[in-house]
Amino acid sequence: MVNIESLRKKVIEKTKMQIKERLAGKEVHIIKAVNTLEDLDLVFNMLFEDVRDWYSLHFPELFRLVKEPEKSLALIANLTLRKKFVKEEIVKYYANEEVAAELEKKAKESTGADLNEEQAKVIIQLAEKALELKKYRDMLAGFIEKEMQSKLPNLTKIAGPLLGARLLREAKSLQKLAFMPSSTIQVIGAEKALFKHLRKGTKPPKHGIIFQHPLLRKVKRENRGKMARALANKISLAIKEDYFGKKDISDKVVRELEEKARLLS
Amino acid sequence: MVNIESLRKKVIEKTKMQIKERLAGKEVHIIKAVNTLEDLDLVFNMLFEDVRDWYSLHFPELFRLVKEPEKSLALIANLTLRKKFVKEEIVKYYANEEVAAELEKKAKESTGADLNEEQAKVIIQLAEKALELKKYRDMLAGFIEKEMQSKLPNLTKIAGPLLGARLLREAKSLQKLAFMPSSTIQVIGAEKALFKHLRKGTKPPKHGIIFQHPLLRKVKRENRGKMARALANKISLAIKEDYFGKKDISDKVVRELEEKARLLS
Repeated sequence: MVNIESLRKKVIEKTKMQIKERLAGKEVHIIKAVNTLEDLDLVFNMLFEDVRDWYSLHFPELFRLVKEPEKSLALIANLTLRKKFVKEEIVKYYANEEVAAELEKKAKESTGADLNEEQAKVIIQLAEKALELKKYRDMLAGFIEKEMQSKLPNLTKIAGPLLGARLLREAKSLQKLAFMPSSTIQVIGAEKALFKHLRKGTKPPKHGIIFQHPLLRKVKRENRGKMARALANKISLAIKEDYFGKKDISDKVVRELEEKARLLS
Repeated sequence: MVNIESLRKKVIEKTKMQIKERLAGKEVHIIKAVNTLEDLDLVFNMLFEDVRDWYSLHFPELFRLVKEPEKSLALIANLTLRKKFVKEEIVKYYANEEVAAELEKKAKESTGADLNEEQAKVIIQLAEKALELKKYRDMLAGFIEKEMQSKLPNLTKIAGPLLGARLLREAKSLQKLAFMPSSTIQVIGAEKALFKHLRKGTKPPKHGIIFQHPLLRKVKRENRGKMARALANKISLAIKEDYFGKKDISDKVVRELEEKARLLS
């Protein structure tokens, strides 16, 4: 009995170690990070919309002149109220002399309402929060890039770190991704269209998330299916090289893909 | 001609002033704030889920023992890694000796994987970001409460600041809210069910967003319609008093409503 009991403990101990090892240093952190990154992009947009809606009561002209969310948030967080929008201050956060001059003019004749101290405080802090999240988001993107480069250097070079990380997330693990046929890689993320095709005989999808690849948007519309197939082929090759071999094949593959895109554009 | 031109300028000037005044000090800030508050609640939940998903790789037992999102985030942000989860540190952020002792034990025998420095950094910072947003959210709730108390003291006392602010948001302005019949107040926020009732003759909705009122959840299920009607009546009364009169009728009304709820529970 004593022996069985001690054996039982040893086995439990060993299983725990195996569980730990299964996760340690694995690509699972990339998957969690890319999930978080997508949430953060959503969150940033939501908070920016809230700031814009709200600050527009005070200075609606700002958002008509400054289109980039980050820039207008930086202006609000740093200059706070409309009366502080003078050219030499504006250019510190928005390096465009012409727009800055126009903004100063608009700020003077704005139809927006004044804000009291309390109101200004909550809006400005909201802009600050949105900017802080954006900063964290960019840091996280850097984390993903670094992890991807160390674990999947060829894929990262060919697909880019974020698209590569998303492919990994869809596949659920590096191993599954490595064993995936390139036809699956081509349509992964377009499952809805794929199953509709299988069930109802509609046209099969030409591409899933690899649609995000910049080369795919370079080619002519009618050649997108061809380009997507070529891209999926090369991505599949890159993943297999990352998983089984360790050679750097990225330069050659990138050159081939660029050549292909030139022919199809 | 000179006269017409100067007249034109004056009229434009006057219109601009009117637009400004229309917004200044109005309840519109309450509406923007309550929209933002709802977004922030959503955002906090999203980020908490991300932290939980991710940190569970390292210390899954934490979330089984600590159910409150804020508490587990505070523990992660301050204690960082599992090995720092010792009782005397834990109780600083989670004042429950028993759970703290259990947490220390679980931390020692956890099946979670170790994190490297980079991984720990991004997760811990995510927890910090979520907590900072929560802090801002609570500050914003305080802003709403203060604004509501100064503009709609009776409504705030009777419906609570957040429910009151949401009613105001649904009505779009204080004036519209003040002229709203109590039957509308009763079902506002349940427009989908209301129009289905009008179109298809389904049962009319018993309550819209006033369902959030704590008294409504105290009464028996079959009495909820009655209680909702009484509540909407009194809320309507309170809003009219806030808008037209300025008397404090809240104590009396709250007493009457509590009596009603007692009878119906």
